[in-house]
Amino acid sequence: MNQLKGACIFGQSGGPTSVINASAAGVLQEALKQDNITAVYGAAHGIKGILDEVFYDISKEDPEELELLRTTPSSALGSCRYKLKSVEEDDTDYKRLLEVFKKYDIRYFFYNGGNDSMDTCNKISKFMQSSGYECRVMGVPKTIDNDLFGTDHCPGYGSAAKYIATSFMEVYHDARVYDTGMVTILEVMGRNAGWLTAASALAASKGNGPDLIYLPELVFDMDKFLADIERVYKANKKVIVAVSEGARLADGTYVAEGGTKDSFGHAQLGGVASTLANIVKEKLDCKVRGIEFSLLQRCAAHCGSLTDATEAYEAGKTAVQKAVEGHTDYMVGFEREPGAVYKCNMKLIPLSSVANTEKTIPREWINEEGNFVTQDFIDYALPLIQGETRPKLVDGLPRFANLKKVRVQTN
Amino acid sequence: MNQLKGACIFGQSGGPTSVINASAAGVLQEALKQDNITAVYGAAHGIKGILDEVFYDISKEDPEELELLRTTPSSALGSCRYKLKSVEEDDTDYKRLLEVFKKYDIRYFFYNGGNDSMDTCNKISKFMQSSGYECRVMGVPKTIDNDLFGTDHCPGYGSAAKYIATSFMEVYHDARVYDTGMVTILEVMGRNAGWLTAASALAASKGNGPDLIYLPELVFDMDKFLADIERVYKANKKVIVAVSEGARLADGTYVAEGGTKDSFGHAQLGGVASTLANIVKEKLDCKVRGIEFSLLQRCAAHCGSLTDATEAYEAGKTAVQKAVEGHTDYMVGFEREPGAVYKCNMKLIPLSSVANTEKTIPREWINEEGNFVTQDFIDYALPLIQGETRPKLVDGLPRFANLKKVRVQTN
Repeated sequence: MNQLKGACIFGQSGGPTSVINASAAGVLQEALKQDNITAVYGAAHGIKGILDEVFYDISKEDPEELELLRTTPSSALGSCRYKLKSVEEDDTDYKRLLEVFKKYDIRYFFYNGGNDSMDTCNKISKFMQSSGYECRVMGVPKTIDNDLFGTDHCPGYGSAAKYIATSFMEVYHDARVYDTGMVTILEVMGRNAGWLTAASALAASKGNGPDLIYLPELVFDMDKFLADIERVYKANKKVIVAVSEGARLADGTYVAEGGTKDSFGHAQLGGVASTLANIVKEKLDCKVRGIEFSLLQRCAAHCGSLTDATEAYEAGKTAVQKAVEGHTDYMVGFEREPGAVYKCNMKLIPLSSVANTEKTIPREWINEEGNFVTQDFIDYALPLIQGETRPKLVDGLPRFANLKKVRVQTN
Repeated sequence: MNQLKGACIFGQSGGPTSVINASAAGVLQEALKQDNITAVYGAAHGIKGILDEVFYDISKEDPEELELLRTTPSSALGSCRYKLKSVEEDDTDYKRLLEVFKKYDIRYFFYNGGNDSMDTCNKISKFMQSSGYECRVMGVPKTIDNDLFGTDHCPGYGSAAKYIATSFMEVYHDARVYDTGMVTILEVMGRNAGWLTAASALAASKGNGPDLIYLPELVFDMDKFLADIERVYKANKKVIVAVSEGARLADGTYVAEGGTKDSFGHAQLGGVASTLANIVKEKLDCKVRGIEFSLLQRCAAHCGSLTDATEAYEAGKTAVQKAVEGHTDYMVGFEREPGAVYKCNMKLIPLSSVANTEKTIPREWINEEGNFVTQDFIDYALPLIQGETRPKLVDGLPRFANLKKVRVQTN
């Protein structure tokens, strides 16, 4: 084992999820245990906190609060959407990071995020190497979008998928109470990858889900869409539709853009569900409801998947263990064992192969008509939503982690 | 005890809730046990099912499925929004109901709904009495709006309140991840009564809730609203707002109407959150998100209050027991015992006093500024969200009741 002693810093990046803090718990709890890690820092708002020297001494946190991170949604340390320029273009940030790393003897860098974050990890690691500064860099995946390359799936997806599928089942029942016709259009996150929208099919697999599913992987054909709706409506007077926020027309414009203006003439904030609801209402003259899951779907820790939260934690823990063992420049990913029983093992994926590559739903998992998914998708996704996280409750409401966030003294 | 032997019919009416089926379970399971009740019918789509002679023989249902009703959202038998005319205006429906009641020897009528449904109950009972047909009529309350007169609270409210408060806590965390400013406006149901919007204050009581709450009980003052937002935004860059769908301007128009048009020039389907989001974005030039809980808030059985579901069940059961004992023309309501420990007892409230009366939040439970609620409201609402219903899960997804709905033969 190639020993390396020094401090570690951990940051969270990109849009939050229900379990990104479970990964944080995995990283932080494991790092506190390691003899070679001399100090454990949490960066405020990801890479921005490192650049600004705003970070917290995790050893000062109450262990019970760190444990509560396992069921606390969103990014407890704060996140950012800061994209580093290439070093050739502008090396200011890189030099600053090296300066901060040297100042605090940071020898381990763990970054928890999606595609962009893995790109950040990769660039930083390369710069440290070329500067002759020894630092081990490990990425911990997270994204409700499930679009990271090289891993079977991503922490954050299972919980969002469970919430989406559960809510579809509930709305399915709600939308059926009256004997009048109704079209219900539900908008799901995922701009380029339809994994989360497709999760609505899990509800359908239980007989309580959408009739039609439109993914961003395929061009959205408005005529076909309206014909689909009309067909289902005529057959049973109730239509439930799942549509991705990223649905795009043949000319590349988002369906949501084809939309509406406010009283000032500005484009509406609303999304694809309200745009389509208006169009369907106009064409079919029936009752239509557009519903957007919005932020709710990425922070609904009250309906989290235990499989997801456990894997998120393990991914964080593994990142620390592997780094201490001597590995660097990897993202922790999952490899599913073949067979009917679900089992996933951790694996290490080179950061360079993950960065900036998006994984979308394979065409063969979408039906020929392009308005639903196949059984292969169900078989893939169903194991990921198993088990319940059950956040701690006080007075019938969740008791989320409350970190002290003791600033590390700068001098 | 004044004995009356005959069939009973049960119907569900108005907008569904997470626990209206728990009341159904209470009515139906209890009715099946009663020797004086010779047959138990469930009307399809409330009063419409009786008028059309579409109803189901509940004795044919699997007892396990009836038990699952306790955690199945929405109205399993179907609902309606059918409002009876006054008998003086048009007695057609009344005569038809009498005909159906006589044909099936229906001597017990249980109706589960809100204000309008209690009005329906009351009118039907009066007509049966004036026709000399003995029939006992009992109302079982339900409404997420919590606006029924004469009862401490209504079944359906606690579960919706728990979901709203929980979701506010989660969104509170989500909306804080970036170090940039953001205003998040969440729209809650309740057109004339602000009970459900006010439930967001339960999240605030745990430190993770809205900064501002606007209820339909008070006139919505746009200038004051914008000034409130600006003040909070300047202080901490994050603003979370709860607003009722029923917020109205001084001239009586809904805030949501002051809104937006689609590309055809028609008023938008969207509500008050998106309207206000656009206005705030325009005035304050900051990032704004409007979120509508929409149907999700009234069917989120996965986040149900056990207190609520238990009381809903007991209300149904009590209605049957009291009717069999000889009572008629009442709605079952709740009376809270004084003191710090929550305890509610069932009571009977004359239908005539419930029908068409709305209970709104008392002015003294709203702060003087009109942008939040007081501790009195918290003390009132917090006991109602205690405990979790935990619907049965199969494959990580809820297993809702699946009724056979065996039609009663008409001849």
